[in-house]
Amino acid sequence: MSVTLILGIDPGLNRCGWGLVASEGSRLSHVAHGVIKPPQQQQLASRLLFLFEELGAVIDQHNPHECAVEETFVNSNARAALALGQARGVTLAAAARRGVLVAEYAPTTIKKAVVGSGSADKTQIAFMVRRLLPTAGDVTADAADALGVALCHAAHGGFRRATRS
Amino acid sequence: MSVTLILGIDPGLNRCGWGLVASEGSRLSHVAHGVIKPPQQQQLASRLLFLFEELGAVIDQHNPHECAVEETFVNSNARAALALGQARGVTLAAAARRGVLVAEYAPTTIKKAVVGSGSADKTQIAFMVRRLLPTAGDVTADAADALGVALCHAAHGGFRRATRS
Repeated sequence: MSVTLILGIDPGLNRCGWGLVASEGSRLSHVAHGVIKPPQQQQLASRLLFLFEELGAVIDQHNPHECAVEETFVNSNARAALALGQARGVTLAAAARRGVLVAEYAPTTIKKAVVGSGSADKTQIAFMVRRLLPTAGDVTADAADALGVALCHAAHGGFRRATRS
Repeated sequence: MSVTLILGIDPGLNRCGWGLVASEGSRLSHVAHGVIKPPQQQQLASRLLFLFEELGAVIDQHNPHECAVEETFVNSNARAALALGQARGVTLAAAARRGVLVAEYAPTTIKKAVVGSGSADKTQIAFMVRRLLPTAGDVTADAADALGVALCHAAHGGFRRATRS
């Protein structure tokens, strides 16, 4: 059975988590994870470029087959939505630039896939990610979220469920 | 007196207007303008990449010294803010990638600089852009907005007013 490398991404301008999971049939294993932190003292455009290039470097290094990103929960805070949108835009473009297809999952779908409940909190996500991927070690919250998205994508059978734009 | 080439951009995922203005002391002249339209049938990530690359091609072709973008007006529509944020993110990253500094101006600042009133509408902006840049010809609304941002940046003396991120 062939191995599918899935890169999960938790976009953010201050901290962008990423996590790589290998999926082989029903077997899932941790490959790598990290957090990209664009320098806060730089101007917005430079920080977005930093994110774009660092994420591109992660993709170049690990060569994932598929990519998964959390669908952004749009609440009433339009200013926060704009800021997150900017980080999300360069994240998606960085993946597309390497020809990697990007799937998007709603937060509740990810929680359900990882913890079994759509109302789980971040601590539970991190707990289950460490449980499902024991070799990941002590991952930070951002990386745990990213690994959670990758696990969700694997649980949904990869690109059987295509991205809607 | 040296010529400063200013690229104004009106970011958008469906239609991204751009306009290039040459500023030589108090003399302003039209250089080029256009609208980038990412194919609507493609997935979101591909459309963002299309915008990133087409804008990069415009920058490579014309080699502007400075870049100016409208500050996004964040109203209560968080979903629209997220969508615009995504297009804006790749726009800023594309400029930063070529080492071009990006200035941001509030919509009222642009209107005031171009029309003389912060409450001017789009029609007035387009009218004054055609008037100030007679060789631009019959520009569309998106390109007129982009040329308006470039004119505003020139009126503010270029990078005397730096971008805040």
